[in-house]
Amino acid sequence: MKVSIVGVTGYSGLELLRYLRQHPYVEIVSIHSHSMNKKSFESSYPHLKQLISLPLEEMDPEKIMQQSDLVFLATPSGISKELALPFIQANFPVIDLSGDFRLKEIGAYEAWYGSAAAPIEIIQKFDYGLAEYREKPQSNWIANPGCYATAAELSLAPLLVERKLELDSIVMDAKSGISGAGKGLSRMTHYSESHDNMALYKMNSHQHIPEIIQQLKKWEPTLNAIQFSTSLIPVTRGIFLTAYAKLKEAMTDEELVQLYDNHFKHNPFIRIQEVGHYPVIKQVIGSNFCDIGLAYNPQMNMITIVTVIDNLGKGAAGQAIQNLNIFASFDERCGLELLPIYP
Amino acid sequence: MKVSIVGVTGYSGLELLRYLRQHPYVEIVSIHSHSMNKKSFESSYPHLKQLISLPLEEMDPEKIMQQSDLVFLATPSGISKELALPFIQANFPVIDLSGDFRLKEIGAYEAWYGSAAAPIEIIQKFDYGLAEYREKPQSNWIANPGCYATAAELSLAPLLVERKLELDSIVMDAKSGISGAGKGLSRMTHYSESHDNMALYKMNSHQHIPEIIQQLKKWEPTLNAIQFSTSLIPVTRGIFLTAYAKLKEAMTDEELVQLYDNHFKHNPFIRIQEVGHYPVIKQVIGSNFCDIGLAYNPQMNMITIVTVIDNLGKGAAGQAIQNLNIFASFDERCGLELLPIYP
Amino acid sequence: MKVSIVGVTGYSGLELLRYLRQHPYVEIVSIHSHSMNKKSFESSYPHLKQLISLPLEEMDPEKIMQQSDLVFLATPSGISKELALPFIQANFPVIDLSGDFRLKEIGAYEAWYGSAAAPIEIIQKFDYGLAEYREKPQSNWIANPGCYATAAELSLAPLLVERKLELDSIVMDAKSGISGAGKGLSRMTHYSESHDNMALYKMNSHQHIPEIIQQLKKWEPTLNAIQFSTSLIPVTRGIFLTAYAKLKEAMTDEELVQLYDNHFKHNPFIRIQEVGHYPVIKQVIGSNFCDIGLAYNPQMNMITIVTVIDNLGKGAAGQAIQNLNIFASFDERCGLELLPIYP
Amino acid sequence: MKVSIVGVTGYSGLELLRYLRQHPYVEIVSIHSHSMNKKSFESSYPHLKQLISLPLEEMDPEKIMQQSDLVFLATPSGISKELALPFIQANFPVIDLSGDFRLKEIGAYEAWYGSAAAPIEIIQKFDYGLAEYREKPQSNWIANPGCYATAAELSLAPLLVERKLELDSIVMDAKSGISGAGKGLSRMTHYSESHDNMALYKMNSHQHIPEIIQQLKKWEPTLNAIQFSTSLIPVTRGIFLTAYAKLKEAMTDEELVQLYDNHFKHNPFIRIQEVGHYPVIKQVIGSNFCDIGLAYNPQMNMITIVTVIDNLGKGAAGQAIQNLNIFASFDERCGLELLPIYP
Repeated sequence: MKVSIVGVTGYSGLELLRYLRQHPYVEIVSIHSHSMNKKSFESSYPHLKQLISLPLEEMDPEKIMQQSDLVFLATPSGISKELALPFIQANFPVIDLSGDFRLKEIGAYEAWYGSAAAPIEIIQKFDYGLAEYREKPQSNWIANPGCYATAAELSLAPLLVERKLELDSIVMDAKSGISGAGKGLSRMTHYSESHDNMALYKMNSHQHIPEIIQQLKKWEPTLNAIQFSTSLIPVTRGIFLTAYAKLKEAMTDEELVQLYDNHFKHNPFIRIQEVGHYPVIKQVIGSNFCDIGLAYNPQMNMITIVTVIDNLGKGAAGQAIQNLNIFASFDERCGLELLPIYP
Repeated sequence: MKVSIVGVTGYSGLELLRYLRQHPYVEIVSIHSHSMNKKSFESSYPHLKQLISLPLEEMDPEKIMQQSDLVFLATPSGISKELALPFIQANFPVIDLSGDFRLKEIGAYEAWYGSAAAPIEIIQKFDYGLAEYREKPQSNWIANPGCYATAAELSLAPLLVERKLELDSIVMDAKSGISGAGKGLSRMTHYSESHDNMALYKMNSHQHIPEIIQQLKKWEPTLNAIQFSTSLIPVTRGIFLTAYAKLKEAMTDEELVQLYDNHFKHNPFIRIQEVGHYPVIKQVIGSNFCDIGLAYNPQMNMITIVTVIDNLGKGAAGQAIQNLNIFASFDERCGLELLPIYP
Repeated sequence: MKVSIVGVTGYSGLELLRYLRQHPYVEIVSIHSHSMNKKSFESSYPHLKQLISLPLEEMDPEKIMQQSDLVFLATPSGISKELALPFIQANFPVIDLSGDFRLKEIGAYEAWYGSAAAPIEIIQKFDYGLAEYREKPQSNWIANPGCYATAAELSLAPLLVERKLELDSIVMDAKSGISGAGKGLSRMTHYSESHDNMALYKMNSHQHIPEIIQQLKKWEPTLNAIQFSTSLIPVTRGIFLTAYAKLKEAMTDEELVQLYDNHFKHNPFIRIQEVGHYPVIKQVIGSNFCDIGLAYNPQMNMITIVTVIDNLGKGAAGQAIQNLNIFASFDERCGLELLPIYP
Repeated sequence: MKVSIVGVTGYSGLELLRYLRQHPYVEIVSIHSHSMNKKSFESSYPHLKQLISLPLEEMDPEKIMQQSDLVFLATPSGISKELALPFIQANFPVIDLSGDFRLKEIGAYEAWYGSAAAPIEIIQKFDYGLAEYREKPQSNWIANPGCYATAAELSLAPLLVERKLELDSIVMDAKSGISGAGKGLSRMTHYSESHDNMALYKMNSHQHIPEIIQQLKKWEPTLNAIQFSTSLIPVTRGIFLTAYAKLKEAMTDEELVQLYDNHFKHNPFIRIQEVGHYPVIKQVIGSNFCDIGLAYNPQMNMITIVTVIDNLGKGAAGQAIQNLNIFASFDERCGLELLPIYP
């Protein structure tokens, strides 16, 4: 299978390169950027020196569609909605890593992203790519989920599907590594400001909130709102999400773990931790794993769910490749079998 | 006023030194440790070279009581309960930074600390030293609060006092810098394991939980439980606590901030952030400040409270000195007017 | 003594604030910035909330000279050379923290800074403010040394003064924390790029090289060149400089330490480490200390000198205040007696 | 090819696992540790959960020799010298990652490691495994080089081979990430002490010094000593080595780069940076690359060589696998073609 990557000079694009280079069935035939040329690319990312023989090209949809079987758009929200159009019109497969095709409700994108949405009929064509819960696995167009959204949705899925939760009690406290903010410079990501620091941002206004609710409603249509906070912690990669919710009825830790084990037993990238064990960020860095630990607090009749992913792995490039594998009927794990890098 | 510091070689003891050295009315007359001598002290802490002319002595209660007016016990939980006894018997003032004299309920210490408590009549003599809410400000014996407990209690005080909260809805997600674990070596605090990592520990079992509930019940006696989680983040200093709770009735962000502003208007170390602003760890490091930001989420009828302290400042040595100032009728701010160190 | 700070919103300006606030004889009467106003200042630096009652003003030399006795220019190189002029014309005292008035040789500034120098007769008025070696301590105009330059010059002074070194053998490998690059955004200081990284920059072209040579030549006029490398390490503050040089004749470690001890015996901010001990960055952070360790390697007839400073302390604001103390005939230590912050 | 790993629970052993799992021609048939069992292994290293189906066994040489074709000893110095003996007696291939079989000179091991060496006739059997310069590529016994030694030797090889250097002028200032100190707990690797810090250690006494000199003498037998310093920087992985030396005759930057390019043109893991570019640690993390940048300083007639490796990659497990590939006549790159992980 031949693929092209647009936006290869961003962190998600680079991570697509890293994984796909050792995918047994995929060949990268072209890489594209509008912000860099080959020379500046190699000089900006010297880790790639002597490893990328392809030229870095301006995006040319016609050429991509001639050479490739699928294109990854690893471009920012707001850009993808323009770049994707020629591919969609030509019925050409796209996996988009931005937020531009995720929100199906009219007006939602405008409200949360603050700019005009793609045409609704285009958005509707996209399958939301939460890999473990794809609705149209053979869809030509896949909207790869957000990093926070992936962790949040996988955290709650089993309990929502099984109708175990008090719906108005869900609190999610999410922490992200700073690569989640991308390579764009800002004071918040300036080393002297972010190192040795922690900061909550986008209070009650992060654009992944409607995406999460949209997915949770598929499992529990009466759910209307969640409390969802996003903070930056001083690590480069990783999301650490702590979710809290009240149960309708008490469960033991063992029952909780059993429920999750059963629910995810066919999902190789979801690893449920044993009773009394909670995942740490480091155990998934460089991989596509989503690791989940669970505890029940009888004093509050409340569960705690600790979920970790690599924001550039399962939260972006890893899941995009998993979605490619599903699309192409490869084993889900192809190209994603690297061990996490530890320590 | 003359003071002695026992346990000066721990991180809280060192921080007492740092603050007290420039306290206008306090003189340190002796420093004590059982684990180090003068030579190993200076070699272990070369930042003190040429700055500490005092010898490092074994603890000798008689000598301390002859020379000093008050003793700080900056010793670990389990040690203080032994060391404090001669001072208490002699009616000599003690500020204890450990957890040994905080829990007033019989059996609580045993349940949460896993060892025998100090005699209950001794524990009862201690005034819980949450400085803004001291009950017996002239008490000779002060149990300085835990770092997490300080942040948690100050976060909720105004809303509990005003009876604004749904009591069974309190969720607190607390993150601590790694100095909170002290200077003892452990795998969890080994650089290669803790750097670039985040880990939840002591799930539903941190020993500050009963301390927090004990204090919250003073404001809302019907409160019985909270959800309280503790995690390590890769910074040396700082606590970042995010608290969530449902309100009985809706409030605007402005009303929330106004409530806190009023409540704390006479407390120089509590700085309420303006509407739409949330504190970051760095803004309090090296100081005794506790900075609090507030937001209301109407979809959930839930507030978010973001609170930051320096775990060695307001969470330990800073508050201990604030308690000393209260005890001695100094201005609360004496010795604590250093600006936070930034960046 | 009344002072004004221009450029208070940069990292060195903030550090001047931190130290001067507790200087016993100095009052800050005005603070100035052209890039921020009071509102953006407090919002950018919430650590200062409620602590700075002064307004943040545009710089007005007339007003400053009416109100103050001295002005600190904590402005970048290239800016100071303009701002300083009215003060110099009015014979008003200035301590400048930039590189604009340090290089006395005609053409040197242009060659190393890449822009036009201040008028040479103005530059000549400035006393180079290496505090331990001031030539005109009562000068009204002080060019505060660069951070690297301070560490480098203090490292070598005793051996050069005593003519112990083979002059063509000096190699200095200097590492700086990232705050040294200031608050300006750049890819090199973007968290995701600088964290977990180390990078050499300005190979053989750092603008502190001619400054160092200029000072070293005062002690050894025949010295012409040094090897001096500058790298960024992932810490916020601190310079760690390792200097190597061949000796004309062998010395023992004890003789080396003795030589330095003697040389600096009247300098309270220079702390020579005992034989076999070498300083670490953390032992000077938040202070004005310069700590030096020494070793002799008989196989190479070469010494190693390890020198650490806080780039914002002894490398900038701390030394500026030390220079103020010298100028005003205060004890050199006034306002600088804070313990380093540890850990 | 079937291999066993002894000492799999150390950082180098874990990294062997990570690489070998995707080596096309190697199967890991057994893993061994004396400090952990299967349960504690998975609990200590949750990143491996569900990924390692092998049991964790006590080492049993007989069983290993029956099942495997080669054994990796990823055990500490002092342990390997015991564990290797039965394999050597049985003429069974060993790649040893410790320092126990590297120093060929009688007395050297005792002098630098401070304990008894392996029998000299055993040491002599081992081929020093600097992969680009193997002397006996088909040797059954390979002493994998130290991490610092690898970087140091590769830095200087071309210039020594070509006799360009003034031999008594070599100064190497090496910085290592903290994983180089292994998983053993120590104050120096305690997070609160090592974070935001930098420290020189083992002044003129690091055990890699004689190893480096031994190798350099193969290229320049008259070389007798180097200045070599080792420091810890606050990153988990990576070595950043800055080497300085005087040239016998001036060279341009272009000539230097050309010399290195030619010298290493058949070595896929050595990447010489273009003129004016110097490598950073991040560009090799997670890989077997050794990246080198070069500059000439005419004022000093001195070159600067900047060399970076991943201490667990080219500095340990990566090079061990490269040595396996050479031994087995596989392509040198097999199993080592992962892209560095960036950012």
